[in-house]
Amino acid sequence: MRILTLTKETQQNILENLLKRSPNSYGEYEGRVNAIIEEVRANRDAAVFSYTKKFDGADIDAGNILVTEEEIREAYEKVDPKLLSVIRKALVNIRDYHSRQRQNSWFDSQESGIILGQKVTPLARVGVYVPGGKAVYPSSVLMNVIPAKVAGVEQIIMTTPPGADGKVYPSTLVAAKEAGVDAIYKVGGAQAIAAMAFGTESIPKVDKIVGPGNIYVALAKKAVFGYVSIDSIAGPSEILVLADETANPRYVAADLLSQAEHDEMASAILITTSRTLAGQVAAEIDRFVEKLSRKEIITKSLENYGYILVADSLDDAIATVNEIASEHLELVTKNPFEVMTKIRNAGAIFIGEYSSEPLGDYFAGPNHVLPTNGTAKFFSALGVDDFIKKSSIISYSREALENVYKDIIQFAECEKLTAHANSIRVRFEENSEQK
Amino acid sequence: MRILTLTKETQQNILENLLKRSPNSYGEYEGRVNAIIEEVRANRDAAVFSYTKKFDGADIDAGNILVTEEEIREAYEKVDPKLLSVIRKALVNIRDYHSRQRQNSWFDSQESGIILGQKVTPLARVGVYVPGGKAVYPSSVLMNVIPAKVAGVEQIIMTTPPGADGKVYPSTLVAAKEAGVDAIYKVGGAQAIAAMAFGTESIPKVDKIVGPGNIYVALAKKAVFGYVSIDSIAGPSEILVLADETANPRYVAADLLSQAEHDEMASAILITTSRTLAGQVAAEIDRFVEKLSRKEIITKSLENYGYILVADSLDDAIATVNEIASEHLELVTKNPFEVMTKIRNAGAIFIGEYSSEPLGDYFAGPNHVLPTNGTAKFFSALGVDDFIKKSSIISYSREALENVYKDIIQFAECEKLTAHANSIRVRFEENSEQK
Repeated sequence: MRILTLTKETQQNILENLLKRSPNSYGEYEGRVNAIIEEVRANRDAAVFSYTKKFDGADIDAGNILVTEEEIREAYEKVDPKLLSVIRKALVNIRDYHSRQRQNSWFDSQESGIILGQKVTPLARVGVYVPGGKAVYPSSVLMNVIPAKVAGVEQIIMTTPPGADGKVYPSTLVAAKEAGVDAIYKVGGAQAIAAMAFGTESIPKVDKIVGPGNIYVALAKKAVFGYVSIDSIAGPSEILVLADETANPRYVAADLLSQAEHDEMASAILITTSRTLAGQVAAEIDRFVEKLSRKEIITKSLENYGYILVADSLDDAIATVNEIASEHLELVTKNPFEVMTKIRNAGAIFIGEYSSEPLGDYFAGPNHVLPTNGTAKFFSALGVDDFIKKSSIISYSREALENVYKDIIQFAECEKLTAHANSIRVRFEENSEQK
Repeated sequence: MRILTLTKETQQNILENLLKRSPNSYGEYEGRVNAIIEEVRANRDAAVFSYTKKFDGADIDAGNILVTEEEIREAYEKVDPKLLSVIRKALVNIRDYHSRQRQNSWFDSQESGIILGQKVTPLARVGVYVPGGKAVYPSSVLMNVIPAKVAGVEQIIMTTPPGADGKVYPSTLVAAKEAGVDAIYKVGGAQAIAAMAFGTESIPKVDKIVGPGNIYVALAKKAVFGYVSIDSIAGPSEILVLADETANPRYVAADLLSQAEHDEMASAILITTSRTLAGQVAAEIDRFVEKLSRKEIITKSLENYGYILVADSLDDAIATVNEIASEHLELVTKNPFEVMTKIRNAGAIFIGEYSSEPLGDYFAGPNHVLPTNGTAKFFSALGVDDFIKKSSIISYSREALENVYKDIIQFAECEKLTAHANSIRVRFEENSEQK
């Protein structure tokens, strides 16, 4: 892995290189996705079935689009009991963590008869998209479903593409059942997103769509945004390790590789104040890579977006950490909690040498759906907040309004909104009933 | 105003009619906006100055793009002292309300050495867009700036188009100064949005852009979303009044008109269980309209999107209220707080007959930037939440990780992510340093 000295210029070049991963235009995909969406909007179930035949090779109709209880039972039989046991343990941790994110409705009252507040309401119906194909991630099912469940969403549906045999991958079904999904529909791609955004005879319209997917799914989510809410569009995975000379180079190397294996666009960066550590980590990486099953992907992603940066000072290193705003950040330094206080931008912060990033992917409890590609500067992890919304509450007594009504009229008239002023004035006109 | 009986079919027709207000395609605008954005990205200040000359007729350059302290002093001299006094009163209420929205960082610890938590950080820099033209809304400046200020945003900048004389409207400047804006730039339209999203020599790049604007501004915000965060794209204003026979028809009529005057696309709907009230409100509306300065707009908006609906029961009425998910909802019934418990979807809920909607627009404290066009089903009012983000905190001791490390390896291997498994395993290999 390349070792560079951290300067303003290296920082700038790296930031520009990383940003290349967010394409400006999706060209031909966009047109195809829009056509699918329009078709599903117009022809509903019929379009969904026809695309499923075309793209997944499966014969799906109104009679078999919904996964049955029988299919779920079969899935439980097929899944490794050890995986089921781990899913259940992870589920408890994820639920516990997200339960702490719940927000209360609140109000404040004043004696003149003013009540102001905010009412928190869960979304009514949420759709979770789960990709098909070879990469089957039951952890992703848990991370997308549990926050919605904890938020109190009434109905959680899931869509996922079937294989050509019309079946869904067993571990997906088991994770969905464990997490509490209410209904699972065998449909994938842009057609699944369109079906959940607008509703079909078989698939109900939802309020929000979450979950990862390929370029078609991502573009479809972007296209239906506004008709429904969506989660953010996930970019390639990223890890940034901030380490000093106290760090174990073997652990650091292993952690960098854990994200590099995701895909060729993934980014793994070490920023360190120790040139010795830099060299050791590079050497450990070379040794590990030889033994790992996803060696080819790892090699490409390190070539593309892997860096070891040597900083003059911890402050310089932290400044760059905040500029990169990584999805995952590990702090492996002498006083990592002190360093944490200086971190402004990161999706998740892993503190200390035993807080390896995959601990967060699967088990610890915080969500693994995190902002990527610098968006940790303004976005947060998926969580309960994403499945609630807030309504303002305003109640004034006659006395309370009378105290301020002239001010409101003044303000409205300055903005030339006379009907606004009128609506306040009418309440304090003498004999207003007769006018 | 038309009076209809509320049935499933009327409800469906109205929902479809209201949705027509969200265009599917912006056609020619989109291309023009994208061209402006690309030009500003490439040529920065030079592009900004040239568009400002072209669209606003103003000679703006690096020397005068920033509003000076002198210009702000002049603005204070020009603004009606009564308006200034009202702005200051409203500001206190808005700040108080939003202060209650602040969220704390939190953590939870377990004795095995686990710390999990969530760190709340304000965004570093926010840009507020303020439209120019004839409609000058200092209240909008307050509502967009104060939540960012309360959230702890370090730097709040503002962009607003200058007149041909290179000046900005005095009440905009005064409201900005009162609310605590750090810098005001004389640039408007898509070019202002692009400048804030990507930065120019004069205008710093921001993390989030908020504020209303015309179609160019809205499309530009949509286009830069992802590079920066944006608030939601506001649609035409809406009021929905739910009233029974106890309501004062004159107040209800005046409140409906207060939103109808915003623009021809605005929607004003009364749902009532009382046919008598329906008729009285219609009559009051006819009388009021004649006297109001924005009569033409009001007449058009009532023709397009105004309805009085008579429901068989309060439950039916509430069900429709929840389907429409109005930006503003007034509850003017016998037990309005009891009715409030049944409301799932509304941007802001005004309770009781003295809680007239314009009270919320200007003065009470809750934000007047609210979800429109049915999006109250999944979006919330602008608030402090929009100007913070949350980073997950994960810290495990060796002991804590040792308790669960085999489970994590199991999970990772089931997902065929061997480098993930390796990063955990390496920490518990004997003599791991030597391997």
